[in-house]
Amino acid sequence: MPAVWTPRHASHAPGGGYWLGVELPGDEEPPRGEVLRSALERAGAPVHIATLHGDEPLLRIHDPEFVDWFSRAWSEWEAAGLVEETGQQRVVPYVFALPQLTSGRPAPEPAAVWARSGRFAMDTMTLISPGTYDAARGAVDVALTACDLVLDGTNRAAYAACRPPGHHAGARLYGGSCYLNNAAVAAQYLRDLGADRVAVIDIDAHHGNGTQELFYARDDVSFGSVHVDPAQGWFPHFLGFADERGADQGTGFNRNLPVAPGTTDDDWVAAVHDLVEEVRRFGPSALVVSLGVDAAEADPESPLKITDAGFTRAGRALGTLDVPTVFVQEGGYDLEQLGPLVLAVLRGFESAPVPRRSKEEHA
Amino acid sequence: MPAVWTPRHASHAPGGGYWLGVELPGDEEPPRGEVLRSALERAGAPVHIATLHGDEPLLRIHDPEFVDWFSRAWSEWEAAGLVEETGQQRVVPYVFALPQLTSGRPAPEPAAVWARSGRFAMDTMTLISPGTYDAARGAVDVALTACDLVLDGTNRAAYAACRPPGHHAGARLYGGSCYLNNAAVAAQYLRDLGADRVAVIDIDAHHGNGTQELFYARDDVSFGSVHVDPAQGWFPHFLGFADERGADQGTGFNRNLPVAPGTTDDDWVAAVHDLVEEVRRFGPSALVVSLGVDAAEADPESPLKITDAGFTRAGRALGTLDVPTVFVQEGGYDLEQLGPLVLAVLRGFESAPVPRRSKEEHA
Repeated sequence: MPAVWTPRHASHAPGGGYWLGVELPGDEEPPRGEVLRSALERAGAPVHIATLHGDEPLLRIHDPEFVDWFSRAWSEWEAAGLVEETGQQRVVPYVFALPQLTSGRPAPEPAAVWARSGRFAMDTMTLISPGTYDAARGAVDVALTACDLVLDGTNRAAYAACRPPGHHAGARLYGGSCYLNNAAVAAQYLRDLGADRVAVIDIDAHHGNGTQELFYARDDVSFGSVHVDPAQGWFPHFLGFADERGADQGTGFNRNLPVAPGTTDDDWVAAVHDLVEEVRRFGPSALVVSLGVDAAEADPESPLKITDAGFTRAGRALGTLDVPTVFVQEGGYDLEQLGPLVLAVLRGFESAPVPRRSKEEHA
Repeated sequence: MPAVWTPRHASHAPGGGYWLGVELPGDEEPPRGEVLRSALERAGAPVHIATLHGDEPLLRIHDPEFVDWFSRAWSEWEAAGLVEETGQQRVVPYVFALPQLTSGRPAPEPAAVWARSGRFAMDTMTLISPGTYDAARGAVDVALTACDLVLDGTNRAAYAACRPPGHHAGARLYGGSCYLNNAAVAAQYLRDLGADRVAVIDIDAHHGNGTQELFYARDDVSFGSVHVDPAQGWFPHFLGFADERGADQGTGFNRNLPVAPGTTDDDWVAAVHDLVEEVRRFGPSALVVSLGVDAAEADPESPLKITDAGFTRAGRALGTLDVPTVFVQEGGYDLEQLGPLVLAVLRGFESAPVPRRSKEEHA
């Protein structure tokens, strides 16, 4: 399977974040991107360098106000003297535009540079380093380049080694180590270039609240996610519950399958199968997989206990869908396992018994 | 003028907060409450100790979900082992329930104790120490006891030495060193005990976003505020603009008079006069003054340059309204000046030439 990567990822180096006021080292840092490239190359996958795709596909998903602010967040921070004043070589939020703080009105851009992040930030863990915007734009280009590889019909699937990840990011929301929603931009791009319906399946250990929000009221892009249950105390805390089934014409096209901490292969793979069967009924003409591998037992960021074999089985289940598929990298923070587990999913996918269409269907 | 105070304030000792990830020492700490009591006693004011007023007046203003969570926030933090895990002897938020994170639905209470503050917190500066809830409840009792002193008709005015302050707190929102909105609870209490219309005038250096939000759609409680312009970079950043005039039947009953950093006595006092004249036209039967004195030149928290004489003139302007008046302490962080400036306002108020009603009006 062809893969897409970009060296631009390396410019995103936030150096950790703040949890309950405590500074923590980060694990979504440049080594992840290098580990992914090495693993792909060692596996013999052709690794394409992402090509520039411009603003248009991005702005189909993200609010221009958010993208505009994000593009200048670091330079404004620096120009305002905040590096000297705070010692922070990254944008850290401190005030947040809850609806109760804006009287329900759209929050205006604060005059104070240090308050501007508060229109879009959802946590104090996700910081903006000098190169974060370029890296996030690079990750979107990675996802879109992978889409190109399947859209031209020469590849059944492609893998996008996106970093930073994206599935927590909304139209005007960043957090959970995500800034721009690579998978959502990819899904919309596939739609815009001809796919009548696109399915997104998210197997990252955490709920993809951003992707859900973006497609929640739509019936042309479905979203299904298996993730550790927010009702048992897991990020993103406020979304990811089973009763979130979509809104308006999107009702029924959102499916959350939260699983308990400690869940092992059989139950998790069964949930992936359920998502796959739901997508089969939806009948999309393209599939985007939000491929996090942080459900692994050794991963520091989740309490799930999925093995290499479990990831292979998940990949095989996804492979039975027989539609053009773009894998978009999300989480996975154990540097030893990140590469092997991604490859396990992709190999599982490629080994899937694809059902042959009957002659009647082709007639 | 009688004053009300409570020793319970001292149990609120958050020990500072976080601004852009940087730990800062706090200036809304127990010495403020002691300085206020000493100044009042030295001035010869009778200092009443606040009496308990129960939940009912509080719940007329604050959402029961918020009060319930706030009442258990510290004990849950401790019981969850977060003191050991984080070293924090206070509740610090890290994830915030922006509408983009809750799909516009009311945010459910997160299962994770450490995420629960994010339903209500607006910043990382305002932390909850072991005694914060009791102190905040005590401050509400201080305000309500001051209301009692004017409601019985024996006092034209009373002063409530509230700490922590309240005007940034909304129905389900805390931040800006505020937890429960003492002034708003007082205004509602005066309404409920017979005042047809109540005016709130807020002369704290910062916009009282919480009070504004609470009465924004009401025509029976007006809100007027003079404060440093959020459009020039000042907290609370997202509200306090001149075009916020109220909503629905409250349209026209909200008045913001933002002033520029560096504003001195004449312009600031003129703004207070404008608020007073607007209230005179409103014709309330009671007045609540959100009395912050952080507009003082020496105050560390605002760029306004108001002198002792300016505060006296503001008090005199307020005194011309000739309605039962409850002063509720808000900000003021220069410990040297806090007492004298509060007294300057109260003395100005008492020196006001109260217009005699004509015989026709009494007929």
